[in-house]
Amino acid sequence: MKLKVGDLFEISFRFSQDEVIAFAKLTGDANPIHLDPVFAAQTPFKKPIIHGMLSATIFSKILGMDFPGNGSIYLKQNLEFLRPMYVEQEYIAKVNIVSIDTNKQRAILSTQILDLQTQKTTIKGEAEVANKELFI
Amino acid sequence: MKLKVGDLFEISFRFSQDEVIAFAKLTGDANPIHLDPVFAAQTPFKKPIIHGMLSATIFSKILGMDFPGNGSIYLKQNLEFLRPMYVEQEYIAKVNIVSIDTNKQRAILSTQILDLQTQKTTIKGEAEVANKELFI
Repeated sequence: MKLKVGDLFEISFRFSQDEVIAFAKLTGDANPIHLDPVFAAQTPFKKPIIHGMLSATIFSKILGMDFPGNGSIYLKQNLEFLRPMYVEQEYIAKVNIVSIDTNKQRAILSTQILDLQTQKTTIKGEAEVANKELFI
Repeated sequence: MKLKVGDLFEISFRFSQDEVIAFAKLTGDANPIHLDPVFAAQTPFKKPIIHGMLSATIFSKILGMDFPGNGSIYLKQNLEFLRPMYVEQEYIAKVNIVSIDTNKQRAILSTQILDLQTQKTTIKGEAEVANKELFI
């Protein structure tokens, strides 16, 4: 089924401290702000924050697996890290089709993460994705 | 030591198939284009490609750990995924200071990944980072 402007996908998610540690090992980003509660307590964030790029991987997962999913090619992703995100806290990722170029079989999608409790946006941005079967 | 416009950091890196598998597990992005050689052989990429967002984590690592490093807060990252990237192949990440706002203690940095052998750009974009000690 082809997708149309305005179609929306949303999913709730959370990361654990173990996942933050795994991401730090995988990427080499072992900044103590993500890993060390004593260090983080002395910063404005008060406790360890999730790597912004780890949180943003939810868009890679959604776009590649769910919406549009199979056959998608990731072309662009813009990210604004607006607020800190914490482990074991519930967030919602929302992806919304803003425009479709049926000639190029590409779409622009808004990509947003909200704190479930406060409904404040923690990350916002846009993605561009190609999909030969769904953006037609 | 404070940083200035034009300052450049570069580092070579590669990812293994095991790291791609670990990223797929961590993020839930198990798109077969990244994991399944038989599936990937039927696509224009011919073999499994690294998740674009995994490759882009090199910027999180550089900005958080190396340049500017300690005390940095990641504010924005724009990414254009221009060419496929493959496991066990050597790439170079280049980060270059484009402008500094000393009032806000923030800088815009160009962020680029090149294929070491072909020197073609695989990912390009810009980051915005705050650092109270280095952007003064």
